[in-house]
Amino acid sequence: QSSVTVYGIADVLMEYRNKLNAAGDSRLSVTSGGMNTSRWGLRGAEDLGGGLKAVFQLEAEVGFDTGAAGSSFWGRQANVGLEGDFGRVIAGRSYSTTYDFMLPFDPMGYAPFYSWATSGGQIATQPRKDGMVTGVSNLIKYQGTFGPVKVGATYALGEVLGSDAAGRFLSVAGAYTAGPFSVALVVDQRNGTTITSGSYDKEKALHLGVSYDWKPVKLFAAQRRYTKSFAVGGTDLKSTMSWIGATWSATGALSITPVVYFQNIDSGASGTNDPRLFALRAKYELSKRTSLYAVASNAKSKNGGVVSVSRDDNGFADTQSSFGLGIQHRF
Amino acid sequence: QSSVTVYGIADVLMEYRNKLNAAGDSRLSVTSGGMNTSRWGLRGAEDLGGGLKAVFQLEAEVGFDTGAAGSSFWGRQANVGLEGDFGRVIAGRSYSTTYDFMLPFDPMGYAPFYSWATSGGQIATQPRKDGMVTGVSNLIKYQGTFGPVKVGATYALGEVLGSDAAGRFLSVAGAYTAGPFSVALVVDQRNGTTITSGSYDKEKALHLGVSYDWKPVKLFAAQRRYTKSFAVGGTDLKSTMSWIGATWSATGALSITPVVYFQNIDSGASGTNDPRLFALRAKYELSKRTSLYAVASNAKSKNGGVVSVSRDDNGFADTQSSFGLGIQHRF
Amino acid sequence: QSSVTVYGIADVLMEYRNKLNAAGDSRLSVTSGGMNTSRWGLRGAEDLGGGLKAVFQLEAEVGFDTGAAGSSFWGRQANVGLEGDFGRVIAGRSYSTTYDFMLPFDPMGYAPFYSWATSGGQIATQPRKDGMVTGVSNLIKYQGTFGPVKVGATYALGEVLGSDAAGRFLSVAGAYTAGPFSVALVVDQRNGTTITSGSYDKEKALHLGVSYDWKPVKLFAAQRRYTKSFAVGGTDLKSTMSWIGATWSATGALSITPVVYFQNIDSGASGTNDPRLFALRAKYELSKRTSLYAVASNAKSKNGGVVSVSRDDNGFADTQSSFGLGIQHRF
Repeated sequence: QSSVTVYGIADVLMEYRNKLNAAGDSRLSVTSGGMNTSRWGLRGAEDLGGGLKAVFQLEAEVGFDTGAAGSSFWGRQANVGLEGDFGRVIAGRSYSTTYDFMLPFDPMGYAPFYSWATSGGQIATQPRKDGMVTGVSNLIKYQGTFGPVKVGATYALGEVLGSDAAGRFLSVAGAYTAGPFSVALVVDQRNGTTITSGSYDKEKALHLGVSYDWKPVKLFAAQRRYTKSFAVGGTDLKSTMSWIGATWSATGALSITPVVYFQNIDSGASGTNDPRLFALRAKYELSKRTSLYAVASNAKSKNGGVVSVSRDDNGFADTQSSFGLGIQHRF
Repeated sequence: QSSVTVYGIADVLMEYRNKLNAAGDSRLSVTSGGMNTSRWGLRGAEDLGGGLKAVFQLEAEVGFDTGAAGSSFWGRQANVGLEGDFGRVIAGRSYSTTYDFMLPFDPMGYAPFYSWATSGGQIATQPRKDGMVTGVSNLIKYQGTFGPVKVGATYALGEVLGSDAAGRFLSVAGAYTAGPFSVALVVDQRNGTTITSGSYDKEKALHLGVSYDWKPVKLFAAQRRYTKSFAVGGTDLKSTMSWIGATWSATGALSITPVVYFQNIDSGASGTNDPRLFALRAKYELSKRTSLYAVASNAKSKNGGVVSVSRDDNGFADTQSSFGLGIQHRF
Repeated sequence: QSSVTVYGIADVLMEYRNKLNAAGDSRLSVTSGGMNTSRWGLRGAEDLGGGLKAVFQLEAEVGFDTGAAGSSFWGRQANVGLEGDFGRVIAGRSYSTTYDFMLPFDPMGYAPFYSWATSGGQIATQPRKDGMVTGVSNLIKYQGTFGPVKVGATYALGEVLGSDAAGRFLSVAGAYTAGPFSVALVVDQRNGTTITSGSYDKEKALHLGVSYDWKPVKLFAAQRRYTKSFAVGGTDLKSTMSWIGATWSATGALSITPVVYFQNIDSGASGTNDPRLFALRAKYELSKRTSLYAVASNAKSKNGGVVSVSRDDNGFADTQSSFGLGIQHRF
């Protein structure tokens, strides 16, 4: 009678990466999440009649190299809501509408070490790789599909005393699919949680993604235009992160995915570093749920800025390369 | 062949609450647990023959607003034991017999922000809202039902070196049901873990609850008489927490629950503050497992004592109000 | 359609133990894991055709006395791999090949408080109880069975920058079974993670185990020869941990297990302490999955060294005893 499904992704990679410290040392490591972040979760749906369903989801990150849990245990998903012909509305913690709508336009599927599509807020040290808002607490999220059109929105409360607007996040998106062609547009804004002179920092992003399934090759292109303005003084930080890539389904089981991510930093400390990442993946499906894969990447920054292949790290030199072999099993 | 059931409660509330800091600011927030603490767990039973069963339970709190786990992961339940005609005996961590026996007499079902039935040990700052012992580690717990009579006891080891009695908790309870009428009586004592001059603090509580199901209205009344005596010197802290409430099943799906909790503090720093909480809930059942609800509350303290609607918080002013809309799904 | 199995062990013990502090105090406590570490986990297998399977496992420790999780949540198992006629290869976190191959030769089954088979790396204070490598992160592990022969190996990356060898762990094992007789031999080496003058500490162990099932009595004997050499200076630490024991299946449900663990410390600060542990367990199976048990132990150290019955604790006197009654349920 229990309606709960236990599911997850076990993704482990043996990876070589160079230039991992100031001395320029390289390392071989066993790492979690070469294609997608390893995870496990619970989800369920209850039919309420009249086309209405109650839905819930709990999802947790898992380090399949050390067994570590995420810093917030259910940091990926912890939400409940209703689903019907109108779409789905959930409340709690989840990924932003920005994250959901752009995922189909990243051929690397947000791979933690081989995609910059989800790179975080601007990083203090160089290079910046600003800035998608991914996981969001205290949200209300809506998504609905009407024929070829998909619309969505996230509204997350800042819960900052003294200002309803501080800490607030808002994302609005639309997508359209016509045969092999898909396009999505997302605008979002996140306000800082610190109130200074009655104001707060503001991060705004506009995402645009297009794809064309020219079988057996699917082409992807996307761009994020990012601006951060400060509560008091300071020049706006601006950057544009773009990526283009393709997935070639060479055989029924084998696919090849090359992508390049490149950022144009318009202002600020890293203004002339303009980093880029090239990633290449070959995936061989043993089944629909289990794959072996090989992946290689190279990151490069201009004018001596430091760079890492990882979306989250700063790096120690103006280039870094990695190569890995992995297995992913979905359960 | 696996006999394990995965279960839980996903309960999310959008709540407005005022007077949340010294400046008197209010806030709108997405919060977890408007009717019951959000949770998930595993439980199972194995038939051992002859009417005997082995039983186990693991239950964890979940913050359905941020995805956070509880401070001790399986802090709600982590126990194993045997069940038969004689009742059920478990060992490990669980809720006290006091908690179990009084739950049916709180019309708010121990809602975290809308019930003071489970308010914690006495709080250093005002007001006190002393003090039910809820979750207990290192326990042996018994419960048995014999016709209209239910009996139970918890014995939890203090595990304090140098004294078998320090840290110990003992609770003994009985309940009786006759048609629409139910009554329960519980006595418990918790000893402090710090040994001072060969003694320790002692908290004693007596709980009495009655209910009468005068369909479609069920009436509830209960009281906790609490005394804390100190190992060395100090006047005893005494208080009485009482509550009366009702649940009106207006239609098959809609129920209305008003309750008032009021504490009479007989001694100590908050002796004249005597706080009270009024809570009102309307619940609409979309199914047996999924409900929408609206809830409002107002807390008030006398003579300038601070108060919060939450059983756990101190508050910043002598009154606080809240209003919320939520959804609860049981899986 | 979900192929995931939820499983675990709920093992709770009420235990008396003496000499738990410098004052010589004893204590009665409710403790988790009297026969085996309490745990829960998820595991699954997917048939890939041609005799090949994808496998994954997640396993977490649970404190069935307080509800605590392990320090790394999935610290017992977090791995994924492939299984076929060739055996099983997994990557991630798991137990070492040493741990896997010696488990069948410990009649106490690595009981946390009643076996020294898995005692940790050498302990700074006395006595040492060096040293099995148990849980291992960043590993590749292989195990295969070919008729009466079982072979296995673990290779775990050190992931230390500046040296591929620092932090590395390697274990190679073979086992052979002929009717009632079994034997296993394991050699392993763990390198320290700190590089000093281009070198690092090295721990080497050789394990040998034999068992003979002389029904209804099964006899066990095993030995670990341990050496720790230091990167710079210092005399090698050497010790030999041996154990002999038996399991007498007195009836279909009742079994009696006596074991003695004794360590000969050849060098270092505890060189003359040579501690030993005697443990005795009676287990009564209510079913294949649920047992009641009684267990007693006594540890003794020579020449005034301190000792604990627990493999993990140092102790406060040259002897310690414990007695416990417990229940274990496997789900």
